[in-house]
Amino acid sequence: MNYPNGIKKENSSPHTPPVNYKNRGMTLENELNLSNEYYRDIDKAYIYKKPTPIKITKVDYPSRDKAIIKEAFFTVPSTTDYNGLYKGKYIDFEAKETKSHTSFSLSNIHPHQVTHLKNIHNHQGIAFLIVRFTSLNETYLLTIDKFTSFINSSNSKSIPISYFRENAYILSDSYRPRIDYLKVVDILIGGKNE
Amino acid sequence: MNYPNGIKKENSSPHTPPVNYKNRGMTLENELNLSNEYYRDIDKAYIYKKPTPIKITKVDYPSRDKAIIKEAFFTVPSTTDYNGLYKGKYIDFEAKETKSHTSFSLSNIHPHQVTHLKNIHNHQGIAFLIVRFTSLNETYLLTIDKFTSFINSSNSKSIPISYFRENAYILSDSYRPRIDYLKVVDILIGGKNE
Repeated sequence: MNYPNGIKKENSSPHTPPVNYKNRGMTLENELNLSNEYYRDIDKAYIYKKPTPIKITKVDYPSRDKAIIKEAFFTVPSTTDYNGLYKGKYIDFEAKETKSHTSFSLSNIHPHQVTHLKNIHNHQGIAFLIVRFTSLNETYLLTIDKFTSFINSSNSKSIPISYFRENAYILSDSYRPRIDYLKVVDILIGGKNE
Repeated sequence: MNYPNGIKKENSSPHTPPVNYKNRGMTLENELNLSNEYYRDIDKAYIYKKPTPIKITKVDYPSRDKAIIKEAFFTVPSTTDYNGLYKGKYIDFEAKETKSHTSFSLSNIHPHQVTHLKNIHNHQGIAFLIVRFTSLNETYLLTIDKFTSFINSSNSKSIPISYFRENAYILSDSYRPRIDYLKVVDILIGGKNE
């Protein structure tokens, strides 16, 4: 297996990941939001989850200052859920959970989100996916490079867990932050020699 | 007047800005969205408007695939409206229109948005405001540095137009993109000697 830019995986034998039960039940999104809040609190990084994109079709104004949305629809996101700034770098990622024990279905990611992450990568941003296999309690950071490599070399409609174990960085649970994914971003930044 | 980092204003005599009537009636937001779309089309920059933040309190599911939001409220944004990536730099700004001929009221900007833009600036991001005086048809890019200088040196609750004319970059209308604010960002990046 060839690693781009000479970077090494953080954990090369992730078959016995550290299992931590205390966060069971907390969603990946919640844990990432708490982690980002922590990063902001310690003035380390400014990364936010974007609001859910919706199309508003009806609004009521019961008083001058109050507006109540009475009808709206969820729309397809044009970008990813999270972006922000760390060490002068633009950070951009999508986070997804899957209940599968065996693979991550590509239907979880919109094609234009993949295009977006590739564009970010091409313009010196740091672009990746964070994928949690909830039933295995394993969470991975997969760079858009490694994601693209898989797509280009396979016709499969899902990425097997083995691909994550061999090509992604495992993100173990901790207390503060819950998911210290910037540790991996440090490796990615270092590997880019910038 | 002292310019930070040795940068020069793009237009030092903006008392006769180029007046262009063709965009009258188009909001600043629309013009920025079109500009950002153009920048993406030519693979120059990936800057998006964030979705409006709302708190959803009631959702109906008339069918398996459809969800209709039946009640939601606008919430105070924790960050700014626009962010993205240009030349490897993290870009972050807020855009506002005012009908005033004379000044820009500070009530247009939430205090935590100012804090956010300062944080971005401190972490090597490019942070600014774009302010349009609609009745004058003048649009300015004001760096967070210059915004902060004003706040620190005045107790006024609004920034007079003269401050913009002397300390901000005027953004003239053009065809494509509508508002070529990345020209000014080029100057800001250059001025930082990075």
